Amino acid sequence: MKPEPITFEPIGVIRSPFQEVAGTPIQGVFAPEAEGTVEVFEQFADGLRDIEGFSHLYLLYSFDRTQHVSLTVVPFLDDREHGVFATRAPCRPNPIGLSVVRLLARDGCRLRVGELDILDGTPLLDLKPYVPNFDSRPDARAGWVAAVAGQQRPPVADDRFAGE
Amino acid sequence: MKPEPITFEPIGVIRSPFQEVAGTPIQGVFAPEAEGTVEVFEQFADGLRDIEGFSHLYLLYSFDRTQHVSLTVVPFLDDREHGVFATRAPCRPNPIGLSVVRLLARDGCRLRVGELDILDGTPLLDLKPYVPNFDSRPDARAGWVAAVAGQQRPPVADDRFAGE
Repeated sequence: MKPEPITFEPIGVIRSPFQEVAGTPIQGVFAPEAEGTVEVFEQFADGLRDIEGFSHLYLLYSFDRTQHVSLTVVPFLDDREHGVFATRAPCRPNPIGLSVVRLLARDGCRLRVGELDILDGTPLLDLKPYVPNFDSRPDARAGWVAAVAGQQRPPVADDRFAGE
Repeated sequence: MKPEPITFEPIGVIRSPFQEVAGTPIQGVFAPEAEGTVEVFEQFADGLRDIEGFSHLYLLYSFDRTQHVSLTVVPFLDDREHGVFATRAPCRPNPIGLSVVRLLARDGCRLRVGELDILDGTPLLDLKPYVPNFDSRPDARAGWVAAVAGQQRPPVADDRFAGE
């Protein structure tokens, strides 16, 4: 297959307290108190009908503060290098971020969310309902993440993946 | 914010038994026997290091068989219309698909996967490890999906979202 480029336009923007990579939570589950707002552009308002029935959402977004690609990375949770596809690091060939957030309230096209691990101003590409019957795999095996789970690590990022 | 287009190039292709939308499982959890192969392009091989430690992966891919956008849809699991962002339907403003699949085996850049709900030939945009500590929310509230959970529905798609 000849890979053809695929172009997306943001459908909104994510507002959060996090202006810089350093200090941003590395996963939402580590930041229950981190709240922000998903601002969906007005022309997509009809697409949000019934979203308030879900307690959690998937956000898909552009890692727009990471400009470089690295196929191997030392992730925040480990001292050892792993393939980028075996991590959630942003310096991926296609820098698409995926987060599970908690939906706290809806005001029209503005969704107040918690458990947020995303930088302020991040372009939103898509949002989907989190459905535990589809998406919850509590017994999944977590490879190197499980192996380092006993270590004490800061639950926030540093700037190793920022910039060029 | 002025939305700037963002362009991605596929990093691989998904091979599955499903040539047509009609009959394809609507979610992987409904198709434990559905197996296929994720073929990651050779130039990204280093990115797969240590992926075999994970039992489940997120696949992010292009819904390339759906060309139209509809902000409201009647999803496979219901008779009522919902906003597309409150469903997993493919006719989204940015047609990015998200699936949790089971990783069965790795042979270089070929990943044998199960619980597959993706059409054959689908362009792969990204893959990420599923980490239960980050991603599992067994108690999440599932809105209209929970409300219809008692109904008998076929666990495969029809062609309502196919084509133009």
